[in-house]
Amino acid sequence: MKGIILFGHGARNPEYVAPFRRIRARVEAMQPGVPVEIGFLELTQPPLEASIEALVARGVSEIRIVPIFFAPGRHVLKDLPQLLANAMDRFPGTEFEVAECVGEVDAVIAAMAAHAVAAA
Amino acid sequence: MKGIILFGHGARNPEYVAPFRRIRARVEAMQPGVPVEIGFLELTQPPLEASIEALVARGVSEIRIVPIFFAPGRHVLKDLPQLLANAMDRFPGTEFEVAECVGEVDAVIAAMAAHAVAAA
Repeated sequence: MKGIILFGHGARNPEYVAPFRRIRARVEAMQPGVPVEIGFLELTQPPLEASIEALVARGVSEIRIVPIFFAPGRHVLKDLPQLLANAMDRFPGTEFEVAECVGEVDAVIAAMAAHAVAAA
Repeated sequence: MKGIILFGHGARNPEYVAPFRRIRARVEAMQPGVPVEIGFLELTQPPLEASIEALVARGVSEIRIVPIFFAPGRHVLKDLPQLLANAMDRFPGTEFEVAECVGEVDAVIAAMAAHAVAAA
């Protein structure tokens, strides 16, 4: 079974999680039955490790990590691979794949540009 | 004259600026003649202050700041207003308006969700 994790940086503000919940709700509506978790690098709960654990516990064997980042920086290029290396050791039967950062995707760029124009 | 600033966090990786340039190119294509600058809180050049200065020097008197953030956290709720308070002191003839964070906008949420689904 496949599963998706929306991977974010995390922040002190508890309302930071709101957009992640909105993305998850949309993904669940588009793909009923595909488990979707949210996991963070720091500050916001749950940590990525806990999200991976939750998906594996639900029988997921292929996990796609979607970085909710504007661009691949240190967190996506260094921290994320380290977390996934640990997860691969812990769950040798699970496959992991990392998608493009959302900020690299044409449709997301277009939607952000439209918002900038609408705001002006 | 109106102008737009795409306001981002900044990162060590020099490629971090790429999506911001793509958003700017789209906005310029949608609204030719409206000056668009990119400005960062830290690490990436130019700082927000320099972008404001550049727009004012081009004759812009109404600046819309579009936070390229997923959610309003400390940087958008505390750091940005402080930077703008300083800018208002420096440029008393300039009006500033802050748009919603891109991550709060329905169309952006939808595009991110579509990417998560496409990735899976």
